[in-house]
Amino acid sequence: MSVPSPAFPPERDADVLVVGAGPAGLHAAFYAAWRGLSVTLLDARHEPGGQLTALYPDRRVYDVPGLPAAPAADVIAGLVRQLDGLNVQWHLHTLARTLEPDGEGWRVGATTPDGPRTFRAGAVILAAGLGALLPREARVPGADTHPDVRTDVPDAAELAGRHVLVVGGVPQATRAALELAQAGAQVTLTHRRAGFRGSPADLGALEDAGRSGQLKLLAPATLTTLTPTSASLTVDGQPHDVKADTVLILNGYLPDLTPVQGWPLDWQGEYVPDGVGSRTALPGVFVAGDLAASGQDFKLISVGLAQAAVAANHAAHHVRPDLRVRPGHSSEKRLS
Amino acid sequence: MSVPSPAFPPERDADVLVVGAGPAGLHAAFYAAWRGLSVTLLDARHEPGGQLTALYPDRRVYDVPGLPAAPAADVIAGLVRQLDGLNVQWHLHTLARTLEPDGEGWRVGATTPDGPRTFRAGAVILAAGLGALLPREARVPGADTHPDVRTDVPDAAELAGRHVLVVGGVPQATRAALELAQAGAQVTLTHRRAGFRGSPADLGALEDAGRSGQLKLLAPATLTTLTPTSASLTVDGQPHDVKADTVLILNGYLPDLTPVQGWPLDWQGEYVPDGVGSRTALPGVFVAGDLAASGQDFKLISVGLAQAAVAANHAAHHVRPDLRVRPGHSSEKRLS
Repeated sequence: MSVPSPAFPPERDADVLVVGAGPAGLHAAFYAAWRGLSVTLLDARHEPGGQLTALYPDRRVYDVPGLPAAPAADVIAGLVRQLDGLNVQWHLHTLARTLEPDGEGWRVGATTPDGPRTFRAGAVILAAGLGALLPREARVPGADTHPDVRTDVPDAAELAGRHVLVVGGVPQATRAALELAQAGAQVTLTHRRAGFRGSPADLGALEDAGRSGQLKLLAPATLTTLTPTSASLTVDGQPHDVKADTVLILNGYLPDLTPVQGWPLDWQGEYVPDGVGSRTALPGVFVAGDLAASGQDFKLISVGLAQAAVAANHAAHHVRPDLRVRPGHSSEKRLS
Repeated sequence: MSVPSPAFPPERDADVLVVGAGPAGLHAAFYAAWRGLSVTLLDARHEPGGQLTALYPDRRVYDVPGLPAAPAADVIAGLVRQLDGLNVQWHLHTLARTLEPDGEGWRVGATTPDGPRTFRAGAVILAAGLGALLPREARVPGADTHPDVRTDVPDAAELAGRHVLVVGGVPQATRAALELAQAGAQVTLTHRRAGFRGSPADLGALEDAGRSGQLKLLAPATLTTLTPTSASLTVDGQPHDVKADTVLILNGYLPDLTPVQGWPLDWQGEYVPDGVGSRTALPGVFVAGDLAASGQDFKLISVGLAQAAVAANHAAHHVRPDLRVRPGHSSEKRLS
């Protein structure tokens, strides 16, 4: 398991680099690592799960095989748990941008919270789905005058004791408001429509917290202006000011494919043509999940998972030619 | 959901007939039924699960996405539970043999415990894996003189109070011996080698039951002859007779593809060529799982599950052209 391949120098970050920690990327990382390879896993967001955790964390998924009516978060939790004990390095908040040859391997340029960084790997599995799920931008008059406007889910403890205005109706806004209130922040949650989204448990907790005064709910309400220390809203046609040391604008995520669409993969619109073994036009670059053209626009989680398993096994053979493509029966193996 | 398609007369047994209740067949049945179709599911064995329950029920499977280190039985249980509330008719102990056109649909001839039977359906999904998993035959001198020699797992209650000799080292033999002893049969379990197979729990229970005398363990031992009421074994070179009203010979299962290999599907050895949508050469006949040539001999459960989902969605559109091929996001639906 630890024999380095001469073709890929030890200075590489990993045998296999996986771009995207949605279901397909998580399963690709599992399978490559299960085959004994070192894996680096990048995702633009602060958490794994791709569309499931970004776009519908409050919903159930009915068609993941063997997981009837599973909450989206549970589907992801199982895929993450499957990485336990395997050689997978996570890099979240990390947006893959460029792809360049690096000897017989590849070099992926990314932006991270600490600045640009390059990852070197023997093979790359592109599992970027609809694209990097980036927070929708805030467009609030005066936002440039306020010292602390954010569009990403914060570490709640960091904001304890502060006045925080959470803006948004997505499940992440509901959850952030609850976590911040629990951590001791003075929270106001507002949304332009009357309802909030969230799991039934979160919505119940939100109603309780609103009733008990643990946090303040203002909806429907329009955020009109920010000043350096407060926010002006319109509620029922009346102006309403709220103290706001921090403004969290959580309006959900918009997918951005543009960085990886610059990679020379013979793109067909938003799809990458994939051949036998989930191979792309570039040797050692594989594709799995919603991006892969062979999925026939189905966008089923089960299809992405299968493509990921196939891609990872072919990547294993590519990086370590002594490994067969086919893994054999997993039931006859143990973790190394 | 209940609009019958004019192309497929109401006398049909189901919109979709699935051959094989392994992982691929179970998921195909789920997805077709989830799309609102009626489904008939056939399997040659007495239980669902295919290879997982027949060949390695005592093992864990490591590479089913989202189910880390899952006991094989748990993988199957999840897929079976996913059929709850859906319109799926089970026919176990039912071996599919023939395929004939039936108007715009298909007619599958099968053998059942009650004799031959024909099933009529609008579409067929062949998910027969390695073939029907038939019990290995018994070859014991005198077996033809004994009134009750069986090669299939019995209903334990039916044999309460009888002397039962269970022959075999497979997990099914261990489990049958335990269940029969618990149901009040006088059980002897024997195997030609020293060890038995089973889940850790079953093996522990077997040891306890052997020590307490709840059942008798004879291994290694050779079964030499059967008489109408007893069995002669050789243990440590010495003859040893055991009373036996019933002899259960559980030597595992051998796959038999021959019946379905007669179907005109342009077979490539043990594989059926599958095109876009898991289609075969015959309109309305689809293939999924280990049989499908596109799996590239991978034989991964995840690949079979994805093929099953694709096959079922294409079958849905074939049988009910008003249904789109693509199901849309399952998270936006509820069971009807």
